Amino acid sequence: MPRPQAVLRVIGSDRAGLVADVANLLFRLGGNILHADDHIDFEAGLFFQRVEFTLQGELTPSDRERIGAQIGQTCDQWKMRWDLRWHGAPRRVALLTSKHAHCTLDLLARHRAGELACEIPIVISNHPDLEEEVTRRGYKYVHEPMAKGEKRDQEQRLQRRLEEEKIDLVVLARYMQILSTDFVAPWKERILNIHHSFLPAFAGAEPYKQAYRRGVKLIGATSHFVTADLDEGPIVWQDVTRVSHSDSVDDLVRKCRDLERVVLANAVRCFIEDRIIAYGNKTVVFD
Amino acid sequence: MPRPQAVLRVIGSDRAGLVADVANLLFRLGGNILHADDHIDFEAGLFFQRVEFTLQGELTPSDRERIGAQIGQTCDQWKMRWDLRWHGAPRRVALLTSKHAHCTLDLLARHRAGELACEIPIVISNHPDLEEEVTRRGYKYVHEPMAKGEKRDQEQRLQRRLEEEKIDLVVLARYMQILSTDFVAPWKERILNIHHSFLPAFAGAEPYKQAYRRGVKLIGATSHFVTADLDEGPIVWQDVTRVSHSDSVDDLVRKCRDLERVVLANAVRCFIEDRIIAYGNKTVVFD
Amino acid sequence: MPRPQAVLRVIGSDRAGLVADVANLLFRLGGNILHADDHIDFEAGLFFQRVEFTLQGELTPSDRERIGAQIGQTCDQWKMRWDLRWHGAPRRVALLTSKHAHCTLDLLARHRAGELACEIPIVISNHPDLEEEVTRRGYKYVHEPMAKGEKRDQEQRLQRRLEEEKIDLVVLARYMQILSTDFVAPWKERILNIHHSFLPAFAGAEPYKQAYRRGVKLIGATSHFVTADLDEGPIVWQDVTRVSHSDSVDDLVRKCRDLERVVLANAVRCFIEDRIIAYGNKTVVFD
Amino acid sequence: MPRPQAVLRVIGSDRAGLVADVANLLFRLGGNILHADDHIDFEAGLFFQRVEFTLQGELTPSDRERIGAQIGQTCDQWKMRWDLRWHGAPRRVALLTSKHAHCTLDLLARHRAGELACEIPIVISNHPDLEEEVTRRGYKYVHEPMAKGEKRDQEQRLQRRLEEEKIDLVVLARYMQILSTDFVAPWKERILNIHHSFLPAFAGAEPYKQAYRRGVKLIGATSHFVTADLDEGPIVWQDVTRVSHSDSVDDLVRKCRDLERVVLANAVRCFIEDRIIAYGNKTVVFD
Repeated sequence: MPRPQAVLRVIGSDRAGLVADVANLLFRLGGNILHADDHIDFEAGLFFQRVEFTLQGELTPSDRERIGAQIGQTCDQWKMRWDLRWHGAPRRVALLTSKHAHCTLDLLARHRAGELACEIPIVISNHPDLEEEVTRRGYKYVHEPMAKGEKRDQEQRLQRRLEEEKIDLVVLARYMQILSTDFVAPWKERILNIHHSFLPAFAGAEPYKQAYRRGVKLIGATSHFVTADLDEGPIVWQDVTRVSHSDSVDDLVRKCRDLERVVLANAVRCFIEDRIIAYGNKTVVFD
Repeated sequence: MPRPQAVLRVIGSDRAGLVADVANLLFRLGGNILHADDHIDFEAGLFFQRVEFTLQGELTPSDRERIGAQIGQTCDQWKMRWDLRWHGAPRRVALLTSKHAHCTLDLLARHRAGELACEIPIVISNHPDLEEEVTRRGYKYVHEPMAKGEKRDQEQRLQRRLEEEKIDLVVLARYMQILSTDFVAPWKERILNIHHSFLPAFAGAEPYKQAYRRGVKLIGATSHFVTADLDEGPIVWQDVTRVSHSDSVDDLVRKCRDLERVVLANAVRCFIEDRIIAYGNKTVVFD
Repeated sequence: MPRPQAVLRVIGSDRAGLVADVANLLFRLGGNILHADDHIDFEAGLFFQRVEFTLQGELTPSDRERIGAQIGQTCDQWKMRWDLRWHGAPRRVALLTSKHAHCTLDLLARHRAGELACEIPIVISNHPDLEEEVTRRGYKYVHEPMAKGEKRDQEQRLQRRLEEEKIDLVVLARYMQILSTDFVAPWKERILNIHHSFLPAFAGAEPYKQAYRRGVKLIGATSHFVTADLDEGPIVWQDVTRVSHSDSVDDLVRKCRDLERVVLANAVRCFIEDRIIAYGNKTVVFD
Repeated sequence: MPRPQAVLRVIGSDRAGLVADVANLLFRLGGNILHADDHIDFEAGLFFQRVEFTLQGELTPSDRERIGAQIGQTCDQWKMRWDLRWHGAPRRVALLTSKHAHCTLDLLARHRAGELACEIPIVISNHPDLEEEVTRRGYKYVHEPMAKGEKRDQEQRLQRRLEEEKIDLVVLARYMQILSTDFVAPWKERILNIHHSFLPAFAGAEPYKQAYRRGVKLIGATSHFVTADLDEGPIVWQDVTRVSHSDSVDDLVRKCRDLERVVLANAVRCFIEDRIIAYGNKTVVFD
């Protein structure tokens, strides 16, 4: 299966003729559509499309610029939001972590195995614990401690690091800190979080213990974009597994860890492959 | 696999020696243990056991009484709550329904197919709609309408019907009415309800529309015992299925219906086979 | 969500420009694309597309004919296989059954509940057992017994019935008979079967007993198109459920029945909504 | 939840009185049963029990010996096969691997995270590739290459290594070599393998490509004990995940890797916690 040279995502409210116009444009550009997904949210009156395509020959940067401009013109005509990504410019991903290793090490292992087509230039933690584990795998580890009352300062240091590294996506791999609204604002739809999910939901401390006490028969994990509203941003990926009364609190924790790894890895994969379109408080995930 | 002649369920706080005592007693009675399940909730300090056993020969009613008394004596000694059910006295189950046919007809179909070892002497609805469907399958249908402001009267009529029919278990097969605390009280751990479950949970009206708007990736169904706290009683069975942005609200409804059928049927089956032990706000389900 | 007026499915080997051509044609016809799915099988060098669209105004039969001709011309130019279905001409489905009621009654219940947008003009069985169950639900039941040695005759009578009723799809709802190659040939990709699936697979008699003896931890069900090669046709839908050593052979049977209902219903739904494209020995299911 | 001091597993054909006898014995020994599971295979006429228990006070080695002797006497009386494991003597596990890192590294990560209560004194491979990855995590890596025609020699070297390390369990973490019958024989029910599972099953080379060509809708993984009959030993754990036509061969491989990790880890965990009883060609897994 040939790799796409480019991925175009569009979102707009008018669609009569739009599909044809995009298809025609790509045809005129000599493009070959490898895969196209579309979706209409009739309630919201919105149309979504994701197109993977190749173009003939080697493209110079100015070719790419020219093609981008033409696509932009067509999309602007239809008043569509659009985003064009060229293959060969992998997303730069930062992992924010704490002491819980499982999600961080799993993402690094998948990255090394070639499963995640991105760069991971930095792993940042408010604890020193995982330094050795991360660095000996060949990744850069930065310890940004958070003393009491200096959350604001620490977040400013984080922000600077992320800018220096030209980060596209921040992954909260069990970061365990609530990010301030100020920090989150400029990273709209670019911070992914992972958290456990239970039916019913349990607010407050020690959710595993609460779930155990309530005798839930299923536990889950949800990965979502971070918004000012904690744990309430657009959902990207979810999964569950079956549990019973014979599972101890430790068993719930272990099973949830297994879910969290897979759910977060899928959310990251979808992001870096440009499979997600977020709008309102929800997502379209073309997978 | 031989059918058990009796099922004994015990719940207690002291267990050293208890397992041996119950085993010895059954041995002395000539009992043959077909299956035993136990569980300890260390947090609550409680021990649970469910034993299926057979006894030799035909038992007269007075044999059964004598055996029950001996078991009761042993259990009382250990200050255990206990429950002994003899095979051949199937539970009597009433279905309460409204206009939504799917759970009711599914339970009747399973009953006719021999999958549910109970009696279903009555189906009660606050609407006349399902009468023909139910009666032509050979079941009794009673219409107990609820005029405005007469909920209390209607519930008293319901209660009378349930008593007349010597009902052991009330199944709310999409009954769509909130039962009053007064009605629920005497039916503790004997009313099963089914409702949809979403991650996150959606309170209020039109949950499917809310779930659609939130872009959930999983939908579920939960069957639980009814308590005064609506939809918050001990959970008996749960299941989920995967959905995506391409599922319309109607698709969510359809997928949820499929889940509800199977989840409610499993909860009913576990009840009538004496597999559930409820305590606090949770259950042990030996399945 | 508006219902599509038409569904177009195409399959072809050349695709450069094809997507644009189909989109342009629908645009010129005044069509509004509600949903489009495409897929490329790079190994086979094949392109697949399914488009749901509406057209403005009321269409007369001659309008439809004209539009069909134009679409056909475009598709023929690209040497594509194509199929155009107008809404309002529901598929006619025949159920073939034996004595096992669960799949047949489930499909009828879903049909009555409005879940399956087709007609079911006839239920045919080689046994009389389900006649009452089927007819009192308002469906036509025909008993076509199969005496020893007269399989050929019986199949000819079946074939005549199916032709008389202008059947589009034959559903083997636990029919339990092997259809002859002669019977199957003219119904290519138009007979759906359901059967249990185990890991590993068990050939021969009493598969549930074999699965029990092998201690499998999962059981499944598969719905597929029937080909001359028994149980080996293109797969349309599959699902599994978890089992353990504590499940008896009867439990396996019961759990498999629950799977079979849902799996077969999904396969039928996908067929009548024109979601399946079969090729070689596999399917694309746009769901 | 207190950790059990000992786990007793028994398997026998006679059970009347046996449950009581074991319970009585443990009671007389001052034992406190934390958890007991039993199962009867009525077809095979076999009874299985697994009991986790604690004893009061600190036990000297001679206490343990005496207690073991008493349990053995009781079990022998009932002609039962039995196995008693004391906590504090963790199983010694060897990983056999090749170049495929994912299962090996996942098991090591879980071991380091405290999820697997065993020792892993050695990782052996017929390739040098994973040496760095394994050793820098602090595990011993031994390269035992297999030149053409010297399988017998290599297996003898393996056997010696396993003996030297006093190995209890051999885990084939994608070892990719078929072990000879001679090698396997002394390791009955002590070698765990992991392999992909498809519905239907695909024999021969390139199973992922075969599964893709057949358009399967589910893929799975199975962990089983190794017997002389390749991939046909008693099943310990299985799981599946849903796939569609839009999954490429690479996607199938990736999804299968995710399954394999979790399935193999669960099988290993069940082994080292003495949760498995194998008999005939199947297992009872008390989990």
